[in-house]
Amino acid sequence: MNQFGTLFRVSVFGESHGPMIGVTLDGVPSGISLTKEDFAADIARRKPGAKGTTPRVETDEPIIVSGVFNDRTTGAPLTILFENNNTRSKDYEKLREFPRPGHADFVASKKFKGFEDYRGGGHFSGRLTVLLVAAGVVAKKICHGVEIKGHIVEIAGEKDPEKGLQKAIDQKDSVGGIVECVVRNLPLGLGEPFFDSVESQLAHAAFAIPAIKGVEFGAGFAAARMFGVDHNDSILDDSGTTQTNHAGGIVGGISNGNDLIYRVAVKPTSSTPKEQQTLNVKSNQVENFSVKGRHDLCIALRVPVVLEATTAFVLADLLLQSKARN
Amino acid sequence: MNQFGTLFRVSVFGESHGPMIGVTLDGVPSGISLTKEDFAADIARRKPGAKGTTPRVETDEPIIVSGVFNDRTTGAPLTILFENNNTRSKDYEKLREFPRPGHADFVASKKFKGFEDYRGGGHFSGRLTVLLVAAGVVAKKICHGVEIKGHIVEIAGEKDPEKGLQKAIDQKDSVGGIVECVVRNLPLGLGEPFFDSVESQLAHAAFAIPAIKGVEFGAGFAAARMFGVDHNDSILDDSGTTQTNHAGGIVGGISNGNDLIYRVAVKPTSSTPKEQQTLNVKSNQVENFSVKGRHDLCIALRVPVVLEATTAFVLADLLLQSKARN
Amino acid sequence: MNQFGTLFRVSVFGESHGPMIGVTLDGVPSGISLTKEDFAADIARRKPGAKGTTPRVETDEPIIVSGVFNDRTTGAPLTILFENNNTRSKDYEKLREFPRPGHADFVASKKFKGFEDYRGGGHFSGRLTVLLVAAGVVAKKICHGVEIKGHIVEIAGEKDPEKGLQKAIDQKDSVGGIVECVVRNLPLGLGEPFFDSVESQLAHAAFAIPAIKGVEFGAGFAAARMFGVDHNDSILDDSGTTQTNHAGGIVGGISNGNDLIYRVAVKPTSSTPKEQQTLNVKSNQVENFSVKGRHDLCIALRVPVVLEATTAFVLADLLLQSKARN
Amino acid sequence: MNQFGTLFRVSVFGESHGPMIGVTLDGVPSGISLTKEDFAADIARRKPGAKGTTPRVETDEPIIVSGVFNDRTTGAPLTILFENNNTRSKDYEKLREFPRPGHADFVASKKFKGFEDYRGGGHFSGRLTVLLVAAGVVAKKICHGVEIKGHIVEIAGEKDPEKGLQKAIDQKDSVGGIVECVVRNLPLGLGEPFFDSVESQLAHAAFAIPAIKGVEFGAGFAAARMFGVDHNDSILDDSGTTQTNHAGGIVGGISNGNDLIYRVAVKPTSSTPKEQQTLNVKSNQVENFSVKGRHDLCIALRVPVVLEATTAFVLADLLLQSKARN
Repeated sequence: MNQFGTLFRVSVFGESHGPMIGVTLDGVPSGISLTKEDFAADIARRKPGAKGTTPRVETDEPIIVSGVFNDRTTGAPLTILFENNNTRSKDYEKLREFPRPGHADFVASKKFKGFEDYRGGGHFSGRLTVLLVAAGVVAKKICHGVEIKGHIVEIAGEKDPEKGLQKAIDQKDSVGGIVECVVRNLPLGLGEPFFDSVESQLAHAAFAIPAIKGVEFGAGFAAARMFGVDHNDSILDDSGTTQTNHAGGIVGGISNGNDLIYRVAVKPTSSTPKEQQTLNVKSNQVENFSVKGRHDLCIALRVPVVLEATTAFVLADLLLQSKARN
Repeated sequence: MNQFGTLFRVSVFGESHGPMIGVTLDGVPSGISLTKEDFAADIARRKPGAKGTTPRVETDEPIIVSGVFNDRTTGAPLTILFENNNTRSKDYEKLREFPRPGHADFVASKKFKGFEDYRGGGHFSGRLTVLLVAAGVVAKKICHGVEIKGHIVEIAGEKDPEKGLQKAIDQKDSVGGIVECVVRNLPLGLGEPFFDSVESQLAHAAFAIPAIKGVEFGAGFAAARMFGVDHNDSILDDSGTTQTNHAGGIVGGISNGNDLIYRVAVKPTSSTPKEQQTLNVKSNQVENFSVKGRHDLCIALRVPVVLEATTAFVLADLLLQSKARN
Repeated sequence: MNQFGTLFRVSVFGESHGPMIGVTLDGVPSGISLTKEDFAADIARRKPGAKGTTPRVETDEPIIVSGVFNDRTTGAPLTILFENNNTRSKDYEKLREFPRPGHADFVASKKFKGFEDYRGGGHFSGRLTVLLVAAGVVAKKICHGVEIKGHIVEIAGEKDPEKGLQKAIDQKDSVGGIVECVVRNLPLGLGEPFFDSVESQLAHAAFAIPAIKGVEFGAGFAAARMFGVDHNDSILDDSGTTQTNHAGGIVGGISNGNDLIYRVAVKPTSSTPKEQQTLNVKSNQVENFSVKGRHDLCIALRVPVVLEATTAFVLADLLLQSKARN
Repeated sequence: MNQFGTLFRVSVFGESHGPMIGVTLDGVPSGISLTKEDFAADIARRKPGAKGTTPRVETDEPIIVSGVFNDRTTGAPLTILFENNNTRSKDYEKLREFPRPGHADFVASKKFKGFEDYRGGGHFSGRLTVLLVAAGVVAKKICHGVEIKGHIVEIAGEKDPEKGLQKAIDQKDSVGGIVECVVRNLPLGLGEPFFDSVESQLAHAAFAIPAIKGVEFGAGFAAARMFGVDHNDSILDDSGTTQTNHAGGIVGGISNGNDLIYRVAVKPTSSTPKEQQTLNVKSNQVENFSVKGRHDLCIALRVPVVLEATTAFVLADLLLQSKARN
């Protein structure tokens, strides 16, 4: 289903080329100050327009239609709409012939039996990540005192994002990257053993972001090559501070009071400018094909604020749950 | 909470040193043949006893107390119990002083305010993974026709598990590893965009396995360093067969009919035989400390069947959901 | 939380005097024909305007913003908005002094600490039942072949609704009533023992309708005064047809293939035209008070179509679940 | 599914004639004192043995297998088992021919395709209500300070239960009754508008009790015949005390600080001693039939403590949720 959360619940709806898209937040405590302006900074961070990002620019003006009264949350479901202004549906009609490799076009058509809104990826579109960002803005307010920061670790294998993006421009191809999220001042004790571990929930939400293909916490995959005595984080004091942080702030599925650190792998944008070979579903032949339309060369550049957002709504939910039991 | 699933729901209970542990499966269709013997093979694969695994050997005899009648599932909740026979609680009393680095001892004590059952890790114990395996046995029957296979990819950085384990024995330290799961004959169309993507759900369940610190699908983290044209999997025919499989069988969160492939990173066993420095919570001093008791040198060796199990119950749920909508 | 359902999920948002209200349906199968016109009949049945109903008339034009493409459901979340045109917020400012007896004004103010949108009952308003009706229209399409009919059983104790309503007009007071819902051609076997019994779920959804204070199935409260041999419904044939239907079509929580019949008690409209005594929260004195504004004399008259709707979305969910297991 | 709750979750499993039945409580806060003895009083109240109840007497000794350590809850899932000692399965073999009228035998056989455990009603058995009672014991501890009392209102139409039961004995037939539950000292503000109204949740849980066919709050069905000015409860002071309590302590789905009062209708025990006519599924003829075995003449006599239990776990959940948001 298209929602996430137990006490703080995020539901998304809408398609890339429909009239509008929206997100409903259920379980928001009442009395939190919230205005349109609160969304501006994070939405701007996600916005395309910079080098290597799509020239499709939406106004991305949040329209709060419920759950806020006199600039405070009311405790009722909070719905935020965004209009789709800048759609060029004609660009996509041709794609019915060529389900784009790496995109959901083909699986969507099979899964929904041809009834899916195929324009611009429909409900699968990265356009909907603005909804996650909007949810994150509210969630961050619930996580007050907790600092959540996403940043680029590498682009196209380069630590310097500029150098990585230049590789894409030079190659006239799209590239991927790695994004890290660091959470500071998170209370010890969030999460549950087994299915509701902090890792389970953050990974669940992170893999909801299109193009994410890997998630690792702390030392992550490198841990698989370490010895136990090197990997273990010695506890130094009663607040749980550890000497190292290979666990990425989570032990036994529970936050341990140290910085929570995790990384995601972002695949290269599926809409590469390069010519590809793939199935033409009308001719039923494999043919040459080029993606038209407006696309990011490196979607990873826009992921940090989205990953902050999914992190924020996972943690908001866990913080609310933690209050319930204490 | 200690459960997972929508239509096929797995709930676990029990502690390492309590009288018994158990798993309840809700939503099992009626009429599936099921006997104790069906559990033997998978439980044996998880069993310790081999080189590099703990000498604590449990009989691991499944006791089916509900949901099965005349060797067929009834459709009612199916509960399987396992007795804990081979516990040595005295081994653990001393650990109250030294919360073991890498284990949940410290966070559990804080989270549950000292009321947790601390013996052998209590509810956090890897002992409970036998419950996941048991759930997997039933789930695999629901996924009939689908082949789910877990295998070791590397141990301690070595492709050859024997060589990797030898490093642990030589170093008198614990080691980690990487485990892969491959699913064949999975129908196209499972999963949902965004929060219920196949990746989201498999990762959620995989991170419920203790010691897992990373999950990647298909090319995974390597995808972050590929160009788009190289990463994209060209579609070759109307069944969705792709030329390559960098996506690991999942596009847009939906299974695409190709092999589903993913890997998990397993950290080195926290209970290393090596001496460590860590907090003595009674003296409030950092002191030298050694783990006593019986432990695996490499927990990754036992993960393949557990990962198959979590994979099976995620897919069983998705297959049931898919039937509902078709 | 403001949602209901497992495989067919209904979420509502909005306030009586906000810009718009909406409902999101998640889990709708793809390919169902759906246009604005499909909503007209049921929305008209709920509409006020007739004798004894409020003169506040909304256009109640459904705006489908997602999940439908070329007049067919896509399988993506389906959101329907309704604008609030006909609001007179000034009417309600005075009510801050007098939380209206029978209404949620007082509890909402305490629960949400004064941050609630108090205009016209805010999120508690009966206005939102148009969302339930809209959800019901889609749900009824999923329940094709099943006939769901709500009707008035009595108003103000009179079998003839006209006579009952006349009592209200004569007394210049509001009145209540009893509404029945009958479901024909429902398959045998829906529901689960215990918590997901058909009764549990229908009652859960029915009590979401404002003003409902009782629910009974089949013989209901009268069953409590019957002898067993009179109450039991003898089974007559292999399709499960029973001689009588005191069970209302549900045995052991499961639909039994006979007509499903249940009734709800609707309290008199809280906004009576009569003068009342109640607390003035500003003066902290009990004072005389009269409700101004536009209100129904008998809200029960508008309940049949709403009860059909909640019935439809409960049954749509159960029918989808039933497909999953068969 | 066989479970209920959001933050305090109750899952039941087991069959009337299996080796044991059990209940798992997830979300219990740590540190609550809990011993076997705590269950004795409520279990005794449910026990058969008195006049008009079945002579099948189980020892009903709770076996706590997880979630409690040193007589305190640990915060991990808490599972309680009850052995089935006193089963006479041979009594029931004959019933395969005659699915008992009023029982789930017939629908279970169809729903589960003949694979159900039909002995003694299997998973549908009233035997499992001991699990609800056990859950209630723990839930009541979470609701400390809140008083929850169930009592008989009438049996067979008589206010005096003895007189009502005598009617059953005289008629050699089973009878029904009405049970009321009153909750005192419940905080104002629990519940949500619409789907998670207090009425929705209490009714949902109450209809999980076998034989319940109606639920009404406050004035309930009588409200449908009242005028608005008579039904409305005038608010008298800032704590929300009302002059009357026709709303039964719930307004707009939210607890209003007054006594919460509701009643359930219990149908006559389906296993009447009287001869009945019903389908013989082997001969496919309607034939005379008598229930053998040991049964209650009036199951309503045993309902008060069960209704207290379902009330307690609904309220425990709502109290935990309320803490999360305040």
